[in-house]
Amino acid sequence: MQGGYMNRILRVDLSNRTWTTEELDEKLVRDYIGGRGFGAKFLYDDLKPGIDPLGEENEIIFIAGPLAATGAQSCARFEIYFKSPQTGGYFQSSGGGFFAPEMKFAGYDAIIIKGKSEKPVYLWIHDDKVEFKDASYLWGLGLADTEQLIREELNDPYVRVAAIGPAGENLVKYAGVFSDRRAAARGGGGAVMGSKNLKGVAVRGHQKVPIANNEAFQQALKAQVGAYKGNPMYEMMHTTGTQASELTAVLGMYPWKNFREAPGPEWEKLQASEFNKLRVRKMGCQNCMIRCSQITKVWDGPYKGVWSEGPEYETLWSFSGPIGKAEIGLTVLADRLCDDLGMDTISAGQSIGFAYELYEKGIITKEDTDGLELVYGNIEPVPRLIEMIARREGFGNVLAEGTKRMAEKYNQGSEYYAIQVKGLELPAYDPRGAKAHGLNLATSPLGADHNYGYGSQELFGVPIPHPVDRFAVEGKGEITKFNQDWAAFTETGILCTFASLMTGPDIFSQLLYGATGVEEFADPNYMWVVGERIVNLERMFNAREGFTREDDRMPERIVKDPLPYGPSAGQVFEQDELLDQYYEARGWDKVTGIPKAEKLRELGLDFTLDYAAQ
Amino acid sequence: MQGGYMNRILRVDLSNRTWTTEELDEKLVRDYIGGRGFGAKFLYDDLKPGIDPLGEENEIIFIAGPLAATGAQSCARFEIYFKSPQTGGYFQSSGGGFFAPEMKFAGYDAIIIKGKSEKPVYLWIHDDKVEFKDASYLWGLGLADTEQLIREELNDPYVRVAAIGPAGENLVKYAGVFSDRRAAARGGGGAVMGSKNLKGVAVRGHQKVPIANNEAFQQALKAQVGAYKGNPMYEMMHTTGTQASELTAVLGMYPWKNFREAPGPEWEKLQASEFNKLRVRKMGCQNCMIRCSQITKVWDGPYKGVWSEGPEYETLWSFSGPIGKAEIGLTVLADRLCDDLGMDTISAGQSIGFAYELYEKGIITKEDTDGLELVYGNIEPVPRLIEMIARREGFGNVLAEGTKRMAEKYNQGSEYYAIQVKGLELPAYDPRGAKAHGLNLATSPLGADHNYGYGSQELFGVPIPHPVDRFAVEGKGEITKFNQDWAAFTETGILCTFASLMTGPDIFSQLLYGATGVEEFADPNYMWVVGERIVNLERMFNAREGFTREDDRMPERIVKDPLPYGPSAGQVFEQDELLDQYYEARGWDKVTGIPKAEKLRELGLDFTLDYAAQ
Repeated sequence: MQGGYMNRILRVDLSNRTWTTEELDEKLVRDYIGGRGFGAKFLYDDLKPGIDPLGEENEIIFIAGPLAATGAQSCARFEIYFKSPQTGGYFQSSGGGFFAPEMKFAGYDAIIIKGKSEKPVYLWIHDDKVEFKDASYLWGLGLADTEQLIREELNDPYVRVAAIGPAGENLVKYAGVFSDRRAAARGGGGAVMGSKNLKGVAVRGHQKVPIANNEAFQQALKAQVGAYKGNPMYEMMHTTGTQASELTAVLGMYPWKNFREAPGPEWEKLQASEFNKLRVRKMGCQNCMIRCSQITKVWDGPYKGVWSEGPEYETLWSFSGPIGKAEIGLTVLADRLCDDLGMDTISAGQSIGFAYELYEKGIITKEDTDGLELVYGNIEPVPRLIEMIARREGFGNVLAEGTKRMAEKYNQGSEYYAIQVKGLELPAYDPRGAKAHGLNLATSPLGADHNYGYGSQELFGVPIPHPVDRFAVEGKGEITKFNQDWAAFTETGILCTFASLMTGPDIFSQLLYGATGVEEFADPNYMWVVGERIVNLERMFNAREGFTREDDRMPERIVKDPLPYGPSAGQVFEQDELLDQYYEARGWDKVTGIPKAEKLRELGLDFTLDYAAQ
Repeated sequence: MQGGYMNRILRVDLSNRTWTTEELDEKLVRDYIGGRGFGAKFLYDDLKPGIDPLGEENEIIFIAGPLAATGAQSCARFEIYFKSPQTGGYFQSSGGGFFAPEMKFAGYDAIIIKGKSEKPVYLWIHDDKVEFKDASYLWGLGLADTEQLIREELNDPYVRVAAIGPAGENLVKYAGVFSDRRAAARGGGGAVMGSKNLKGVAVRGHQKVPIANNEAFQQALKAQVGAYKGNPMYEMMHTTGTQASELTAVLGMYPWKNFREAPGPEWEKLQASEFNKLRVRKMGCQNCMIRCSQITKVWDGPYKGVWSEGPEYETLWSFSGPIGKAEIGLTVLADRLCDDLGMDTISAGQSIGFAYELYEKGIITKEDTDGLELVYGNIEPVPRLIEMIARREGFGNVLAEGTKRMAEKYNQGSEYYAIQVKGLELPAYDPRGAKAHGLNLATSPLGADHNYGYGSQELFGVPIPHPVDRFAVEGKGEITKFNQDWAAFTETGILCTFASLMTGPDIFSQLLYGATGVEEFADPNYMWVVGERIVNLERMFNAREGFTREDDRMPERIVKDPLPYGPSAGQVFEQDELLDQYYEARGWDKVTGIPKAEKLRELGLDFTLDYAAQ
């Protein structure tokens, strides 16, 4: 490879404490580009079907894209790949910060970790050396302490660490992996690391990322910066980050009390103008001018003095809507706690909110909740519950399993309102108000992950320049396919989801071509093929695990109960029609929801044919 | 000046946000050398008598010694100087780490701060620039968060920060100043900073400290390293840090239940062999081979998972003896909490322990303690009490005032067993078992500070090579004078107290001479004069404030109640005889305890004569 890549994959086996490196395969690069393309391919190739996600045979793969540390804007993301303990299927989770560039500086495009260490360990990867370091003393510690103590032990404050907190150690189903307060949080990658006794990965390097065609690259970079500057979305994200309460509230899509209601005027306590009062500083990932991240501090009220980096929109919601109370200070505290204990805020908040509804319905009582009164609006138990989840203490041990397993445990019809798909809790957009957005949540192989194919046309009117009727069913299969393939394609970079809408396919292709010198990448149409290839491969991973159309179902509340009031009143999620449309657009079998052999051959995925739709 | 010094003092006025620099005065250097010599002189010159320690007129002075960052071993200490809100008198407090060397790199021997900022602020001192940075967002935060966020804001992980925690902000009488988990904790310097709305001082520099006579310096350095290596104390401190429970327990001097008892076999749970089980890593200050500091983690029991840097011996005791329970995990947690909230562990533990005795005697009840049951052996309320002190919540607001003021508040004879001198709580050595050690605690201008003149002869048999009867009264005035002058002299360097016993006067003088080139410093006898000069000047600061022999009194329990059992059974502190001896040895007036004019003239302290003994 001429540029962009470091041309080296690190494979680590924790069971026998060995490591090897291998070169990148040229065909792999051409077919999958990098990032999520590599992740999907490695995972499909390496994992036997049916393995235990928390067993030795699962892998946790760290990947930095070919554009990381090249100077391209907004490409510093690291992604982790694993079979999810939460969904039992394929998973990829994405985090920002500085970890991916440091992987490249150390000379690695990917770090593939399997096996299980006998004792707690962390990896210390510095340029050509890999060391297995004792992490017993770090076990039980939060993320801030862990990163600090590792940097002190290695005597280098520039070391970058991706690690887990107590939630990961205790195998909380939605424990994440964190680096510099950035989270690759969804799907339980932290639990996978915890199951391997792997506390963290510390990286430091001194190499430069080569650029194959500097002239083309610089031109594309200039175009990217120009595209940002002319974009109102850039201004918005630069100023208030990911805050979107206004948008979803105005659309009647801000879920309240476990997707049962709309919030009413209370959401105004969470709007951007309120959030901005808490902001004390902006932060950004490596080489990203958006700087969407915000350090906040609570200035008064019951949570006075608490600070966090965040909360982002999803967390602002997941610790307000699900518990039926808009107290911005609590969202800051919850964000900080989840960041430090190491778990996903969406699933944590939703699991807690689900418990509130179970409590209201009398399915659980104080005897189940260790005496905590989980009455809607009573936010006082929430910080304690977060700690209890991470430590699996008492009722926290139940919440740590997530809504799907909680419904299985308590039964009595509660599955109806366990708001999850494939075991992954829904994010802060009621899918009844935006059908393509919902269709993505239903069909993503990850479960209800919004970033897998964000319905931006319905929500923001971009990238398709004509208005889309968000309630309409017709045409939503095509739009969802577009959004999912687009996300897969940009995540080869790995380009940030937010930035992808501003960068666009032409500039992104040129950045990839300029950095790597691979001619094919210069053609935006080629990229769409790769995007579709990745999505189909991910689908086949799940098909091999036994996933079918049955697993693309939304919770019944979303399908059967119309939204009661507000700007999306009366809407439901027309599941059957929408799924039919989607499979149609995908060229997949409608009965099983599995790709047909013809499509797989077309995409060069012949090695998956054994599991194609019959 | 030829070497050692940066020849620059920074003066900052927070009230009008101005700063100036001035050169070091040659006479000042010759007479006071640096470190504590400078601190005592600046404070005496700058502060008007009678000022409010928490008012604008008080100063907080940071000083780095002439040997900091020269390569001399164990000289990285920073010291702070201020009029103490706890004692109302002169105070100096000393911390380790990396802050003092960074001051030198930035070009400063001293930073003198007066006035009061309208809003929370921190100083950002980088080479020739001084900036007043908004610290509103840091107000209320603990030390770890504060240091991290400042480094992030300044975008340089090598910035060194000395800061306060919530305890300092809330003017806890024994709040300290912390840097990299090292504490200059005693006497309330943190409260002085808090009263000025000064959250911290951040420093970064790129200069080199000049060495005047490199040949002499290197020779002395070689001798210092050699002296360490041959010393069993080096091995002991390198291995187990400051742990000394064995020593004091064997001497019957490990105070238990507010200096009422000896601990019995329970102390064994705190001995070095137990402590060592918790150690996970050694840490050291800049350029110190002793590396006495220990990162610990609690592996099981009720405090499982807690970690700290420490506890050192004093903290191990102050959260066991005063509350009558030896639970090593609690001492680790308490250490960590006090380090992060920013307060002195000795005074905090003792204030809590005093409350336990008040509770036992029925002077306070649950109504006073917010419902907490302060029964000896019940350690459960302790972590909560520490938080309450730092935030001045409820009963914490009382504890935050220290034992002297608590006794004034509750009265009923409790002054008898408020174990403090001048308002400063006694450390972990019962003075009834070592009279010179006790005499130092009684006469130190700081109050009961053990490092002001550590009675090492009685405790370790060094530095005087013949045995000293620790119970004897005779000769203890001379020994105490020796120890105090010695400490003052080594703190000009600023050489660490522990290291001073290994370095000795000859090597230390040569180090000072080699670094600075000042001929006089080469003579060890000259240094004794400077040591005595400093002690007398400090005494005159207090004399000017109205302190007399009356203020050199030990609490009555120590003077009147014999130790009930153990190897020091039957001993009391023979206060009157001991004080007489001490003043005699010092050449001070026995009635008032104030230096006579003759002594002051002899030491070149003519400017203090107005307040000399009549």
